[in-house]
Amino acid sequence: MKTYDQLRSHFLQTSYLNKTIALLDWDHETYLPSKGVAFRADQQAFLSGLSHERLISQQVGDWIEACESESGSLDPFQNANVSAWRRDRDRAVKLPTEFVESFEKECALAKAAWAEARRKSSFELFSNHLSKLVEMSRQKADYYGYQKNPYDALLDVYEPGCTSEDLSPVFSKLKEFIVKLLPEAMDVTRRISSDYLQGFYPLEGQKKFNEMVARAMGFDFEAGRIDATTHPFCTDLGPHDVRLTTRYNELDFTESFYSVLHEVGHGLYEQGFLPEHAGTPMSEAVSLGIHESQSRLWENKIGRDPAFWQDWYEKACECLPALKKWTPEDLTLAVNRVSPSFIRVEADEVTYDLHIILRFEMEKDLLSGDLKVEDVPAAWNERFRSMFGLEVPDDARGCLQDIHWSMGGFGYFPTYTLGNLNSAQLFSAAQSDLGTPAAVLQDGHYAEILAWLREKVHRHGRRYEPAELMQSATGQTTQPGYHARYLEHRFEVLKA
Amino acid sequence: MKTYDQLRSHFLQTSYLNKTIALLDWDHETYLPSKGVAFRADQQAFLSGLSHERLISQQVGDWIEACESESGSLDPFQNANVSAWRRDRDRAVKLPTEFVESFEKECALAKAAWAEARRKSSFELFSNHLSKLVEMSRQKADYYGYQKNPYDALLDVYEPGCTSEDLSPVFSKLKEFIVKLLPEAMDVTRRISSDYLQGFYPLEGQKKFNEMVARAMGFDFEAGRIDATTHPFCTDLGPHDVRLTTRYNELDFTESFYSVLHEVGHGLYEQGFLPEHAGTPMSEAVSLGIHESQSRLWENKIGRDPAFWQDWYEKACECLPALKKWTPEDLTLAVNRVSPSFIRVEADEVTYDLHIILRFEMEKDLLSGDLKVEDVPAAWNERFRSMFGLEVPDDARGCLQDIHWSMGGFGYFPTYTLGNLNSAQLFSAAQSDLGTPAAVLQDGHYAEILAWLREKVHRHGRRYEPAELMQSATGQTTQPGYHARYLEHRFEVLKA
Repeated sequence: MKTYDQLRSHFLQTSYLNKTIALLDWDHETYLPSKGVAFRADQQAFLSGLSHERLISQQVGDWIEACESESGSLDPFQNANVSAWRRDRDRAVKLPTEFVESFEKECALAKAAWAEARRKSSFELFSNHLSKLVEMSRQKADYYGYQKNPYDALLDVYEPGCTSEDLSPVFSKLKEFIVKLLPEAMDVTRRISSDYLQGFYPLEGQKKFNEMVARAMGFDFEAGRIDATTHPFCTDLGPHDVRLTTRYNELDFTESFYSVLHEVGHGLYEQGFLPEHAGTPMSEAVSLGIHESQSRLWENKIGRDPAFWQDWYEKACECLPALKKWTPEDLTLAVNRVSPSFIRVEADEVTYDLHIILRFEMEKDLLSGDLKVEDVPAAWNERFRSMFGLEVPDDARGCLQDIHWSMGGFGYFPTYTLGNLNSAQLFSAAQSDLGTPAAVLQDGHYAEILAWLREKVHRHGRRYEPAELMQSATGQTTQPGYHARYLEHRFEVLKA
Repeated sequence: MKTYDQLRSHFLQTSYLNKTIALLDWDHETYLPSKGVAFRADQQAFLSGLSHERLISQQVGDWIEACESESGSLDPFQNANVSAWRRDRDRAVKLPTEFVESFEKECALAKAAWAEARRKSSFELFSNHLSKLVEMSRQKADYYGYQKNPYDALLDVYEPGCTSEDLSPVFSKLKEFIVKLLPEAMDVTRRISSDYLQGFYPLEGQKKFNEMVARAMGFDFEAGRIDATTHPFCTDLGPHDVRLTTRYNELDFTESFYSVLHEVGHGLYEQGFLPEHAGTPMSEAVSLGIHESQSRLWENKIGRDPAFWQDWYEKACECLPALKKWTPEDLTLAVNRVSPSFIRVEADEVTYDLHIILRFEMEKDLLSGDLKVEDVPAAWNERFRSMFGLEVPDDARGCLQDIHWSMGGFGYFPTYTLGNLNSAQLFSAAQSDLGTPAAVLQDGHYAEILAWLREKVHRHGRRYEPAELMQSATGQTTQPGYHARYLEHRFEVLKA
């Protein structure tokens, strides 16, 4: 067998293991009985260790080196795979297997503790786990190494090449823009109260409508499904097995609906990898900032545009008759309501990035040691007050609201904001390429948008770096101005 | 580390892998999107190969040998574990890893093909897969080795120490008894038609009632759950994670209800292993014939006794109001209705074993080569006619009804009849030990019965051979007479 083929086959088998670990995790979130958590943690730790060992094996290192030296005989996809494997292995070699196993195990336990802590709104129940994970994450950053800030070592895992120094000026510019737009945006939706759409939306009707729209957007239910969890997510369990989750609230259909649109965006990306690349980096997401651009595009650029509810109003009313008392215009205004609030995943598009900036700053301080874990609730509440002008009522609506830290995912949050920026930029390019902006927002045109994204983003997997991908898709690397112009335009239209 | 501890730790890790494979399988049956089947097959094959390699490694062989030579320093549990590991390894060493992988892969594909073939009632869609599996099973028997009949090598996997020569006389005696009892038993329930209980039983009401009874019998829902599949089963995904499945028919609640009681019996066995033995043979089932005795006991000995519907009638009516038009006596008679029919899992307790005898004979003939795969439907239909006096209308109600062959499970069916025999014998012993037969059948006494089973059967795992276990629990090895007396008694009571 040729060296490249050996490497390819090795990583295909590793992907069997990795997708199995993803299934253990999906099951953990969806269906695992409560007493099964401890064993599952051991199980996940053991399998993660196996996967890690397969990645760092000397044999793999030798194969990669051999392939690099004969790169002239490989095609561009093969060379891109070899580069990605090199990058992954170099990173992984830095972490001892026992560290990976105990990190995974701690995460599994921490996630269970977090779920309970959030339910009871008691930070105490989560505090020890968070301390352990912060400490271990700092250790992880030390293993990886970094130039200036331990945080950068973690950020790079999610957004290759990105540092906190890159982000800080972008984030402060963004903060400035938000503060400027906020009063006007709030003004436009002032007549909409927070419980404006409250009604009774039976679970079955929500499921039906969610699936109808997901299908129209192109999500393939023969290669995916939607289940219920505390925190919505999307996971790729194999080349034709993409699982989305959402959470249902029978008093407010928008909670499940917009999280489904969001996860559908992620899911379309995963379903858009080419099956012939299964088990290689060419069928993996290039970065979370690109991944998130896909979810934001379908959730916001399309799902909150005035054209959306013009299109879907009748079908929505059939599934959820409580909607009949409003007009499509009411619905549009309601789902674009701007008002500072506590929960990130329920935040409006204008204030959303403030939530991210808060977390970015908390994380940096936790990692640097400037903030102690026991001070997290107080610090969160104080910073929240200063940014949002609101008093956090309890930890469930404060520092316990997100699952990320319980998964050891420090450095993850900033990619949400990168996703917003990329999303606006990609959508603007798609609109230019596809014709009149209004038309591409109609139901009948979803396939065209999807085809554009498949061509420009999805099918490439990790072939290019995020910056190269943005450059080739939009003609520019990530720029913050598109997001600002998109929001300004949205609220101008709504005002009219 | 002591040699025994190394062995223990190795097998605990192997159990992480094996329980993961069980999850892949459970997910395959419950939630896997249809296009995900091919990748899942590769995944299962790869992980099964890993597990197999861990079992047959030379290191493990050496450790076992070392433990055997120092058995004086080990406690009885440790020695029993070493014996079981020896047995498992000796068997596994006989199968090449590539064979195990390709067998698993073929099973995963065959299961998908079977599900479609059954839906369309088209044996053709399954025929090639069955041929492959018969051929591979014969090869497997050759690898294992056998005294007289290749079938025995496969049977031994499910029922250690049992041969087709042991079974043949028991089965023909049983057939004789059934043929004798049948006319009288049919007579007792003659006024009950096959659609007697037909009505509208909404899914939610069925789920509620099923779970209520399962809970009363002692099934721990914090360490288990119930989902829906084509073919009901029970699988143990870890020390506190036992998953049951059932299938729902809104026109006939008994379909899901009695399969839930059946699977609860299996589940109680799995939940009854001692957590401190997790990952060792002491927390594994000793044989399928013992496993099945547990399901039959809760499903039939308790669930179809006249006392059962006296106890549960009111609660059942609350969950399923359509039941109100009958009395508890009507329900009892209906769920004991005797009438030859096509589907094994819907068969009455009298004719059930005829279904098994048919399959046992088909399997022996397929394995020996006396029966060709393409002749299966014709042979099935002919034998069915001669045993049941009924004309099989289509393959879905004939040779395609069961999942077992698609899982390569030749030799599995006879354990169902062993389960019936063991079940009657164990229940008779429990009734003697616990006091008046009538009292132990009431709801309030389920805990006593469960405690008796935990003590006599569950907690021992594979510590004893099936025959020893029956001897110590009931004072005798498996005898066919208890089952005969149980059935005679049941129909005497119903006649009165």
